[in-house]
Amino acid sequence: MNKIILVTNDDGIFAKGIASLVSVASSFGTVLVVAPNKPQSGMGHAITIADPLRLSPYNGFEDIEAYSCSGTPVDCVKLGIFEVLKSKPDLILSGINHGENSSTNVLYSGTMSAAIEGAMEGVPSIGFSLADFDSDADFSVTQHVANHLIPKVLEQGLPENTALNVNVPKLRTDELKGIKVCSQAHAYWEDKFDSRVDQFGRPYYWLTGKFSDKDQRDDTDLYYLKKGFATVVPTHFDLTNYAVLNELNHLDNEREF
Amino acid sequence: MNKIILVTNDDGIFAKGIASLVSVASSFGTVLVVAPNKPQSGMGHAITIADPLRLSPYNGFEDIEAYSCSGTPVDCVKLGIFEVLKSKPDLILSGINHGENSSTNVLYSGTMSAAIEGAMEGVPSIGFSLADFDSDADFSVTQHVANHLIPKVLEQGLPENTALNVNVPKLRTDELKGIKVCSQAHAYWEDKFDSRVDQFGRPYYWLTGKFSDKDQRDDTDLYYLKKGFATVVPTHFDLTNYAVLNELNHLDNEREF
Repeated sequence: MNKIILVTNDDGIFAKGIASLVSVASSFGTVLVVAPNKPQSGMGHAITIADPLRLSPYNGFEDIEAYSCSGTPVDCVKLGIFEVLKSKPDLILSGINHGENSSTNVLYSGTMSAAIEGAMEGVPSIGFSLADFDSDADFSVTQHVANHLIPKVLEQGLPENTALNVNVPKLRTDELKGIKVCSQAHAYWEDKFDSRVDQFGRPYYWLTGKFSDKDQRDDTDLYYLKKGFATVVPTHFDLTNYAVLNELNHLDNEREF
Repeated sequence: MNKIILVTNDDGIFAKGIASLVSVASSFGTVLVVAPNKPQSGMGHAITIADPLRLSPYNGFEDIEAYSCSGTPVDCVKLGIFEVLKSKPDLILSGINHGENSSTNVLYSGTMSAAIEGAMEGVPSIGFSLADFDSDADFSVTQHVANHLIPKVLEQGLPENTALNVNVPKLRTDELKGIKVCSQAHAYWEDKFDSRVDQFGRPYYWLTGKFSDKDQRDDTDLYYLKKGFATVVPTHFDLTNYAVLNELNHLDNEREF
Protein backbone atom coordinates (compact mmCIF):
# COMPACT_ATOMS: atom_id res chain seq x y z
CA MET A 1 0.00 0.00 0.00
CA ASN A 2 1.20 3.49 -0.75
CA LYS A 3 2.77 5.18 2.28
CA ILE A 4 2.12 8.79 3.27
CA ILE A 5 5.21 10.61 4.53
CA LEU A 6 5.00 14.05 6.18
CA VAL A 7 8.25 16.03 5.97
CA THR A 8 9.20 19.13 7.96
CA ASN A 9 12.32 20.84 9.31
CA ASP A 10 13.43 23.83 11.37
CA ASP A 11 15.77 25.60 8.96
CA GLY A 12 12.83 26.65 6.79
CA ILE A 13 11.23 25.25 3.66
CA PHE A 14 13.86 26.93 1.44
CA ALA A 15 16.80 25.09 3.06
CA LYS A 16 18.90 22.61 1.09
CA GLY A 17 18.55 20.07 3.92
CA ILE A 18 14.80 19.57 3.52
CA ALA A 19 15.11 19.29 -0.26
CA SER A 20 17.70 16.54 0.28
CA LEU A 21 15.32 14.71 2.63
CA VAL A 22 12.29 15.09 0.33
CA SER A 23 14.35 13.62 -2.48
CA VAL A 24 15.10 10.47 -0.42
CA ALA A 25 11.60 10.22 1.08
CA SER A 26 9.82 10.37 -2.27
CA SER A 27 11.23 6.98 -3.27
CA PHE A 28 9.37 5.37 -0.33
CA GLY A 29 5.89 6.90 -0.64
CA THR A 30 3.81 9.98 -1.27
CA VAL A 31 5.46 12.97 0.35
CA LEU A 32 3.66 15.97 1.84
CA VAL A 33 5.78 18.90 3.05
CA VAL A 34 4.66 21.35 5.73
CA ALA A 35 7.65 23.39 6.88
CA PRO A 36 8.35 26.80 8.41
CA ASN A 37 8.43 29.85 6.11
CA LYS A 38 11.51 31.15 7.97
CA PRO A 39 14.38 29.71 10.02
CA GLN A 40 13.16 28.22 13.32
CA SER A 41 16.39 26.81 14.72
CA GLY A 42 16.51 26.69 18.50
CA MET A 43 12.71 26.81 18.81
CA GLY A 44 12.59 23.56 20.78
CA HIS A 45 9.07 22.32 21.40
CA ALA A 46 7.53 25.79 21.04
CA ILE A 47 3.97 26.04 19.75
CA THR A 48 2.01 29.08 18.62
CA ILE A 49 -0.98 29.62 20.89
CA ALA A 50 -1.54 33.39 21.06
CA ASP A 51 -1.57 33.98 17.27
CA PRO A 52 -3.25 32.41 14.26
CA LEU A 53 -1.19 30.27 11.87
CA ARG A 54 -0.97 30.60 8.10
CA LEU A 55 -0.30 27.98 5.42
CA SER A 56 0.77 28.94 1.88
CA PRO A 57 1.15 26.57 -1.06
CA TYR A 58 4.81 26.19 -1.99
CA ASN A 59 5.97 25.10 -5.44
CA GLY A 60 9.67 24.57 -4.74
CA PHE A 61 9.53 20.74 -4.82
CA GLU A 62 8.76 19.13 -8.17
CA ASP A 63 5.51 17.11 -8.11
CA ILE A 64 5.32 17.29 -4.31
CA GLU A 65 2.44 18.89 -2.39
CA ALA A 66 4.03 21.41 -0.07
CA TYR A 67 3.02 24.25 2.25
CA SER A 68 5.06 26.87 4.03
CA CYS A 69 3.81 27.63 7.52
CA SER A 70 4.09 30.77 9.64
CA GLY A 71 4.67 28.74 12.81
CA THR A 72 7.19 26.52 14.53
CA PRO A 73 8.26 23.00 13.50
CA VAL A 74 5.82 21.51 16.06
CA ASP A 75 3.02 23.68 14.61
CA CYS A 76 3.90 22.28 11.18
CA VAL A 77 3.44 18.70 12.38
CA LYS A 78 0.10 19.52 14.02
CA LEU A 79 -1.19 21.43 10.94
CA GLY A 80 0.12 18.75 8.58
CA ILE A 81 -1.80 16.03 10.41
CA PHE A 82 -4.98 17.85 11.43
CA GLU A 83 -5.56 20.40 8.64
CA VAL A 84 -3.75 19.20 5.51
CA LEU A 85 -3.83 15.40 5.67
CA LYS A 86 -6.75 15.23 8.11
CA SER A 87 -5.36 11.83 9.14
CA LYS A 88 -2.15 10.37 10.51
CA PRO A 89 0.66 9.78 8.00
CA ASP A 90 2.66 6.52 8.01
CA LEU A 91 5.90 8.33 8.79
CA ILE A 92 7.10 11.78 9.83
CA LEU A 93 10.58 12.92 8.82
CA SER A 94 12.25 16.10 10.05
CA GLY A 95 15.42 17.69 8.67
CA ILE A 96 17.92 17.26 7.31
CA ASN A 97 19.13 19.78 9.87
CA HIS A 98 22.06 22.01 9.01
CA GLY A 99 24.03 21.24 12.18
CA GLU A 100 24.27 18.49 14.80
CA ASN A 101 21.44 17.73 17.24
CA SER A 102 23.30 15.20 19.34
CA SER A 103 23.47 15.17 23.13
CA THR A 104 21.46 17.80 25.01
CA ASN A 105 21.07 19.82 21.80
CA VAL A 106 17.96 17.70 21.32
CA LEU A 107 16.19 19.94 23.88
CA TYR A 108 16.70 23.13 21.85
CA SER A 109 16.22 21.53 18.45
CA GLY A 110 13.13 22.36 16.44
CA THR A 111 14.04 19.48 14.13
CA MET A 112 13.86 16.93 16.91
CA SER A 113 10.86 18.54 18.62
CA ALA A 114 8.92 18.02 15.37
CA ALA A 115 9.88 14.33 15.44
CA ILE A 116 8.97 14.04 19.14
CA GLU A 117 5.60 15.67 18.40
CA GLY A 118 5.14 13.01 15.72
CA ALA A 119 5.79 10.29 18.31
CA MET A 120 3.25 11.95 20.63
CA GLU A 121 0.73 11.56 17.80
CA GLY A 122 1.60 7.87 17.57
CA VAL A 123 3.35 8.20 14.19
CA PRO A 124 6.83 6.65 13.63
CA SER A 125 9.07 9.70 13.38
CA ILE A 126 12.72 10.39 12.63
CA GLY A 127 14.79 13.57 12.86
CA PHE A 128 17.93 13.75 10.72
CA SER A 129 20.83 16.14 11.38
CA LEU A 130 24.20 16.59 9.70
CA ALA A 131 27.19 17.98 11.59
CA ASP A 132 27.64 20.82 9.11
CA PHE A 133 26.06 24.27 9.49
CA ASP A 134 26.91 25.33 5.91
CA SER A 135 23.78 26.38 3.99
CA ASP A 136 25.26 24.52 1.00
CA ALA A 137 26.39 21.45 2.98
CA ASP A 138 26.81 18.11 1.18
CA PHE A 139 23.92 15.98 2.46
CA SER A 140 24.78 12.84 0.49
CA VAL A 141 26.10 10.90 3.52
CA THR A 142 22.91 11.71 5.46
CA GLN A 143 20.81 10.69 2.46
CA HIS A 144 22.69 7.38 2.45
CA VAL A 145 21.81 6.83 6.13
CA ALA A 146 18.18 7.88 5.54
CA ASN A 147 17.92 5.45 2.63
CA HIS A 148 19.01 2.69 5.00
CA LEU A 149 16.76 3.60 7.94
CA ILE A 150 13.50 4.75 6.33
CA PRO A 151 12.45 1.39 4.81
CA LYS A 152 13.27 -0.43 8.07
CA VAL A 153 11.11 1.97 10.08
CA LEU A 154 8.29 1.85 7.51
CA GLU A 155 8.29 -1.97 7.65
CA GLN A 156 8.85 -2.55 11.36
CA GLY A 157 7.58 0.64 13.00
CA LEU A 158 9.15 2.05 16.15
CA PRO A 159 8.64 1.34 19.86
CA GLU A 160 5.69 3.22 21.38
CA ASN A 161 6.20 6.89 22.33
CA THR A 162 9.65 6.93 20.72
CA ALA A 163 11.16 8.99 17.90
CA LEU A 164 14.64 8.50 16.46
CA ASN A 165 17.28 11.20 16.76
CA VAL A 166 19.68 10.51 13.87
CA ASN A 167 22.94 12.45 13.70
CA VAL A 168 25.49 12.07 10.95
CA PRO A 169 29.13 13.20 11.07
CA LYS A 170 30.55 15.42 8.34
CA LEU A 171 32.26 12.69 6.33
CA ARG A 172 32.23 11.33 2.82
CA THR A 173 29.87 8.36 2.47
CA ASP A 174 32.80 5.94 1.98
CA GLU A 175 34.37 7.24 5.22
CA LEU A 176 31.27 6.57 7.38
CA LYS A 177 31.89 3.65 9.77
CA GLY A 178 28.27 2.59 10.14
CA ILE A 179 25.16 3.28 12.20
CA LYS A 180 25.00 2.91 16.00
CA VAL A 181 21.93 2.83 18.24
CA CYS A 182 23.08 4.56 21.44
CA SER A 183 22.15 7.00 24.22
CA GLN A 184 22.09 10.79 24.48
CA ALA A 185 25.38 12.16 25.87
CA HIS A 186 25.22 14.39 28.95
CA ALA A 187 27.16 17.21 27.34
CA TYR A 188 26.10 20.84 27.43
CA TRP A 189 26.89 24.36 26.28
CA GLU A 190 29.14 26.52 28.42
CA ASP A 191 27.14 29.62 27.61
CA LYS A 192 28.58 33.05 27.06
CA PHE A 193 26.99 36.23 25.82
CA ASP A 194 28.61 38.57 23.37
CA SER A 195 27.68 41.82 25.12
CA ARG A 196 27.82 45.01 23.04
CA VAL A 197 26.34 48.49 22.93
CA ASP A 198 24.14 49.55 20.01
CA GLN A 199 24.16 52.86 18.09
CA PHE A 200 21.80 54.34 20.71
CA GLY A 201 24.08 53.46 23.62
CA ARG A 202 21.87 50.59 24.79
CA PRO A 203 23.40 47.23 25.68
CA TYR A 204 22.47 44.02 23.88
CA TYR A 205 23.45 40.41 24.39
CA TRP A 206 24.00 37.70 21.83
CA LEU A 207 24.11 34.05 22.86
CA THR A 208 27.32 32.22 22.11
CA GLY A 209 29.18 29.47 23.93
CA LYS A 210 31.45 26.45 23.80
CA PHE A 211 30.18 22.89 23.64
CA SER A 212 31.50 20.81 26.49
CA ASP A 213 31.41 16.99 26.56
CA LYS A 214 32.29 15.65 29.99
CA ASP A 215 30.32 12.41 29.63
CA GLN A 216 32.77 9.52 30.15
CA ARG A 217 30.45 6.77 28.88
CA ASP A 218 31.43 4.86 25.74
CA ASP A 219 27.87 4.28 24.48
CA THR A 220 26.72 7.84 23.75
CA ASP A 221 25.96 9.66 20.51
CA LEU A 222 28.94 11.99 20.92
CA TYR A 223 31.26 9.01 21.52
CA TYR A 224 30.18 7.30 18.30
CA LEU A 225 29.99 10.46 16.20
CA LYS A 226 33.65 11.12 17.03
CA LYS A 227 34.46 7.59 15.90
CA GLY A 228 32.82 8.21 12.52
CA PHE A 229 29.44 6.55 13.03
CA ALA A 230 25.98 7.92 12.36
CA THR A 231 24.06 7.71 15.64
CA VAL A 232 20.45 6.75 16.38
CA VAL A 233 19.09 7.70 19.81
CA PRO A 234 15.60 6.41 20.68
CA THR A 235 14.08 9.58 22.12
CA HIS A 236 10.90 9.75 24.18
CA PHE A 237 8.82 12.43 25.85
CA ASP A 238 8.56 11.03 29.36
CA LEU A 239 10.97 13.32 31.22
CA THR A 240 10.42 11.58 34.59
CA ASN A 241 13.74 10.71 36.19
CA TYR A 242 12.45 7.36 37.51
CA ALA A 243 15.85 6.52 39.05
CA VAL A 244 15.45 9.22 41.69
CA LEU A 245 11.74 8.86 42.58
CA ASN A 246 12.57 7.07 45.83
CA GLU A 247 15.33 9.52 46.76
CA LEU A 248 12.71 12.26 46.86
CA ASN A 249 10.27 10.56 49.21
CA HIS A 250 11.16 13.10 51.91
CA LEU A 251 9.22 15.67 49.88
CA ASP A 252 6.02 13.61 50.15
CA ASN A 253 3.60 14.96 52.67
CA GLU A 254 0.10 13.98 53.68
CA ARG A 255 0.02 15.09 57.28
CA GLU A 256 0.82 18.75 57.44
CA PHE A 257 -1.89 19.86 55.04
CA MET B 1 25.02 31.97 54.45
CA ASN B 2 22.71 34.12 52.39
CA LYS B 3 21.18 32.23 49.47
CA ILE B 4 20.84 33.69 45.97
CA ILE B 5 17.56 32.77 44.26
CA LEU B 6 16.95 33.48 40.56
CA VAL B 7 13.25 33.72 39.68
CA THR B 8 11.71 33.62 36.20
CA ASN B 9 8.46 32.57 34.51
CA ASP B 10 6.81 32.30 31.12
CA ASP B 11 3.69 34.42 31.60
CA GLY B 12 5.79 37.58 31.66
CA ILE B 13 7.25 39.73 34.43
CA PHE B 14 3.90 41.55 34.90
CA ALA B 15 1.97 38.38 35.79
CA LYS B 16 0.48 37.88 39.24
CA GLY B 17 2.03 34.40 39.41
CA ILE B 18 5.64 35.56 39.46
CA ALA B 19 4.85 38.24 42.06
CA SER B 20 3.37 35.49 44.25
CA LEU B 21 6.52 33.40 43.84
CA VAL B 22 8.89 36.31 44.50
CA SER B 23 6.98 37.01 47.68
CA VAL B 24 7.58 33.46 48.96
CA ALA B 25 11.17 33.24 47.68
CA SER B 26 12.29 36.45 49.37
CA SER B 27 11.85 34.91 52.82
CA PHE B 28 14.54 32.32 51.96
CA GLY B 29 17.28 34.48 50.44
CA THR B 30 18.18 37.34 48.12
CA VAL B 31 15.97 37.24 45.07
CA LEU B 32 16.94 38.30 41.55
CA VAL B 33 14.24 38.34 38.88
CA VAL B 34 14.93 37.98 35.15
CA ALA B 35 11.67 37.31 33.34
CA PRO B 36 10.20 37.81 29.86
CA ASN B 37 8.84 41.24 28.95
CA LYS B 38 5.81 39.59 27.28
CA PRO B 39 3.88 36.32 27.56
CA GLN B 40 5.98 33.34 26.46
CA SER B 41 3.61 30.46 27.19
CA GLY B 42 4.12 27.45 24.96
CA MET B 43 7.69 28.46 24.10
CA GLY B 44 9.10 25.16 25.37
CA HIS B 45 12.89 25.06 25.41
CA ALA B 46 13.20 27.76 22.72
CA ILE B 47 16.28 29.99 22.78
CA THR B 48 17.01 33.15 20.82
CA ILE B 49 19.99 32.63 18.54
CA ALA B 50 19.37 34.76 15.45
CA ASP B 51 18.65 38.01 17.33
CA PRO B 52 20.24 39.99 20.15
CA LEU B 53 18.61 40.01 23.57
CA ARG B 54 17.72 43.03 25.69
CA LEU B 55 17.48 43.43 29.46
CA SER B 56 15.65 46.37 31.08
CA PRO B 57 15.58 47.21 34.79
CA TYR B 58 12.12 46.58 36.22
CA ASN B 59 10.84 48.29 39.36
CA GLY B 60 7.65 46.32 39.91
CA PHE B 61 8.93 44.30 42.89
CA GLU B 62 9.64 46.23 46.07
CA ASP B 63 13.32 46.05 47.10
CA ILE B 64 14.04 43.27 44.59
CA GLU B 65 16.55 43.57 41.73
CA ALA B 66 14.63 42.68 38.59
CA TYR B 67 15.05 42.79 34.80
CA SER B 68 12.60 42.25 32.01
CA CYS B 69 14.08 40.35 29.07
CA SER B 70 13.15 40.38 25.38
CA GLY B 71 13.74 36.61 25.07
CA THR B 72 12.32 33.28 26.12
CA PRO B 73 12.25 31.78 29.65
CA VAL B 74 15.38 29.74 28.84
CA ASP B 75 17.11 32.92 27.62
CA CYS B 76 16.19 34.52 30.97
CA VAL B 77 17.93 31.75 32.91
CA LYS B 78 21.05 31.98 30.76
CA LEU B 79 21.20 35.81 30.98
CA GLY B 80 20.44 35.74 34.70
CA ILE B 81 23.37 33.41 35.38
CA PHE B 82 25.94 34.62 32.86
CA GLU B 83 25.28 38.35 32.53
CA VAL B 84 23.46 39.56 35.66
CA LEU B 85 24.75 37.34 38.48
CA LYS B 86 27.92 36.26 36.66
CA SER B 87 27.81 33.16 38.85
CA LYS B 88 25.45 30.29 39.63
CA PRO B 89 22.61 31.03 42.08
CA ASP B 90 21.75 28.61 44.88
CA LEU B 91 18.26 28.00 43.50
CA ILE B 92 16.23 28.74 40.39
CA LEU B 93 12.46 29.08 40.66
CA SER B 94 10.09 29.38 37.72
CA GLY B 95 6.43 30.37 37.82
CA ILE B 96 3.99 30.40 39.36
CA ASN B 97 2.48 29.46 36.03
CA HIS B 98 -1.11 30.45 35.31
CA GLY B 99 -2.23 26.96 34.24
CA GLU B 100 -1.19 23.36 34.77
CA ASN B 101 2.05 21.91 33.41
CA SER B 102 1.43 18.32 34.36
CA SER B 103 1.83 15.32 32.08
CA THR B 104 3.19 15.94 28.57
CA ASN B 105 2.44 19.67 28.94
CA VAL B 106 5.95 19.81 30.40
CA LEU B 107 7.30 19.63 26.82
CA TYR B 108 5.53 22.82 25.68
CA SER B 109 5.97 24.69 28.95
CA GLY B 110 8.31 27.66 29.07
CA THR B 111 7.99 27.57 32.86
CA MET B 112 9.39 24.05 33.08
CA SER B 113 11.95 24.56 30.32
CA ALA B 114 13.44 27.37 32.42
CA ALA B 115 13.69 24.97 35.39
CA ILE B 116 15.20 22.24 33.19
CA GLU B 117 17.74 24.75 31.87
CA GLY B 118 18.59 25.47 35.51
CA ALA B 119 19.22 21.77 36.10
CA MET B 120 21.44 21.68 33.00
CA GLU B 121 23.50 24.42 34.65
CA GLY B 122 23.78 22.29 37.78
CA VAL B 123 21.52 24.54 39.87
CA PRO B 124 18.65 23.04 41.95
CA SER B 125 15.56 24.24 40.09
CA ILE B 126 11.81 24.07 40.59
CA GLY B 127 8.92 25.02 38.31
CA PHE B 128 5.58 25.82 39.98
CA SER B 129 2.23 25.74 38.18
CA LEU B 130 -1.32 26.25 39.40
CA ALA B 131 -4.27 24.64 37.61
CA ASP B 132 -5.94 28.00 37.02
CA PHE B 133 -5.49 30.11 33.87
CA ASP B 134 -7.13 33.19 35.41
CA SER B 135 -4.83 36.22 35.30
CA ASP B 136 -6.10 37.05 38.81
CA ALA B 137 -5.90 33.46 40.12
CA ASP B 138 -5.54 32.86 43.87
CA PHE B 139 -1.99 31.56 44.28
CA SER B 140 -2.11 31.08 48.06
CA VAL B 141 -2.28 27.28 47.88
CA THR B 142 0.76 27.20 45.57
CA GLN B 143 2.58 29.60 47.88
CA HIS B 144 1.84 27.18 50.73
CA VAL B 145 3.39 24.32 48.75
CA ALA B 146 6.38 26.47 47.74
CA ASN B 147 6.94 27.44 51.38
CA HIS B 148 7.13 23.76 52.21
CA LEU B 149 9.42 22.67 49.34
CA ILE B 150 11.88 25.56 48.94
CA PRO B 151 13.67 25.18 52.32
CA LYS B 152 13.96 21.41 51.84
CA VAL B 153 15.55 21.86 48.41
CA LEU B 154 17.84 24.63 49.65
CA GLU B 155 19.05 22.40 52.50
CA GLN B 156 19.26 19.04 50.75
CA GLY B 157 19.73 19.95 47.08
CA LEU B 158 18.28 17.82 44.29
CA PRO B 159 19.54 14.73 42.48
CA GLU B 160 21.95 15.50 39.63
CA ASN B 161 20.49 16.65 36.29
CA THR B 162 16.99 16.86 37.79
CA ALA B 163 14.50 19.71 38.17
CA LEU B 164 11.17 19.48 39.98
CA ASN B 165 7.91 19.94 38.12
CA VAL B 166 5.43 21.03 40.81
CA ASN B 167 1.74 21.25 39.92
CA VAL B 168 -0.95 22.37 42.30
CA PRO B 169 -4.70 21.79 41.92
CA LYS B 170 -7.13 24.69 42.11
CA LEU B 171 -8.19 24.21 45.73
CA ARG B 172 -8.27 26.16 48.95
CA THR B 173 -5.20 25.50 51.08
CA ASP B 174 -7.25 23.64 53.69
CA GLU B 175 -8.64 21.37 50.93
CA LEU B 176 -5.21 20.29 49.64
CA LYS B 177 -4.53 16.63 50.51
CA GLY B 178 -0.75 16.88 50.55
CA ILE B 179 2.27 16.62 48.26
CA LYS B 180 3.11 13.53 46.17
CA VAL B 181 6.35 12.71 44.37
CA CYS B 182 5.24 10.85 41.23
CA SER B 183 5.77 10.33 37.51
CA GLN B 184 4.69 12.27 34.41
CA ALA B 185 1.40 10.92 32.99
CA HIS B 186 1.32 9.85 29.35
CA ALA B 187 -1.63 12.05 28.46
CA TYR B 188 -1.72 14.33 25.45
CA TRP B 189 -3.71 16.94 23.54
CA GLU B 190 -6.17 15.79 20.91
CA ASP B 191 -5.39 18.75 18.71
CA LYS B 192 -7.86 20.62 16.62
CA PHE B 193 -7.55 23.84 14.68
CA ASP B 194 -10.16 26.53 14.64
CA SER B 195 -10.02 27.29 10.92
CA ARG B 196 -11.46 30.63 9.76
CA VAL B 197 -11.16 33.11 6.91
CA ASP B 198 -9.86 36.63 7.56
CA GLN B 199 -11.21 39.94 6.20
CA PHE B 200 -9.04 39.47 3.06
CA GLY B 201 -10.48 36.03 2.30
CA ARG B 202 -7.34 34.21 3.44
CA PRO B 203 -7.61 31.18 5.74
CA TYR B 204 -6.01 31.09 9.17
CA TYR B 205 -5.73 28.38 11.80
CA TRP B 206 -5.79 28.67 15.55
CA LEU B 207 -4.61 25.80 17.74
CA THR B 208 -7.18 24.38 20.10
CA GLY B 209 -7.81 20.89 21.40
CA LYS B 210 -9.00 18.62 24.16
CA PHE B 211 -6.76 17.16 26.82
CA SER B 212 -6.93 13.40 26.88
CA ASP B 213 -5.67 11.25 29.77
CA LYS B 214 -5.57 7.58 28.84
CA ASP B 215 -2.77 6.68 31.26
CA GLN B 216 -4.10 3.91 33.53
CA ARG B 217 -1.26 4.07 36.08
CA ASP B 218 -2.04 5.14 39.65
CA ASP B 219 1.27 6.86 40.32
CA THR B 220 1.15 9.77 37.86
CA ASP B 221 0.81 13.50 38.33
CA LEU B 222 -2.65 13.57 36.73
CA TYR B 223 -3.82 10.75 39.02
CA TYR B 224 -2.75 12.60 42.17
CA LEU B 225 -3.87 16.04 40.99
CA LYS B 226 -7.39 14.64 40.53
CA LYS B 227 -7.23 13.30 44.07
CA GLY B 228 -6.40 16.76 45.42
CA PHE B 229 -2.62 16.49 45.88
CA ALA B 230 0.10 18.83 44.70
CA THR B 231 2.47 16.77 42.54
CA VAL B 232 6.25 16.78 42.28
CA VAL B 233 7.75 15.08 39.21
CA PRO B 234 11.56 14.76 39.13
CA THR B 235 12.23 15.87 35.56
CA HIS B 236 15.47 15.35 33.67
CA PHE B 237 16.85 16.21 30.25
CA ASP B 238 18.06 12.79 29.13
CA LEU B 239 15.39 11.89 26.58
CA THR B 240 16.95 8.49 25.77
CA ASN B 241 14.35 5.74 25.95
CA TYR B 242 16.79 3.27 27.52
CA ALA B 243 14.10 0.57 27.74
CA VAL B 244 14.04 0.15 23.96
CA LEU B 245 17.77 0.41 23.13
CA ASN B 246 18.03 -3.35 22.63
CA GLU B 247 14.83 -3.55 20.58
CA LEU B 248 16.46 -1.30 18.01
CA ASN B 249 19.65 -3.31 17.49
CA HIS B 250 18.45 -4.25 14.02
CA LEU B 251 19.17 -0.67 12.98
CA ASP B 252 22.87 -1.02 13.91
CA ASN B 253 25.11 -1.47 10.95
CA GLU B 254 28.85 -1.71 10.55
CA ARG B 255 29.13 -3.85 7.46
CA GLU B 256 27.31 -2.16 4.64
CA PHE B 257 29.15 1.14 4.90
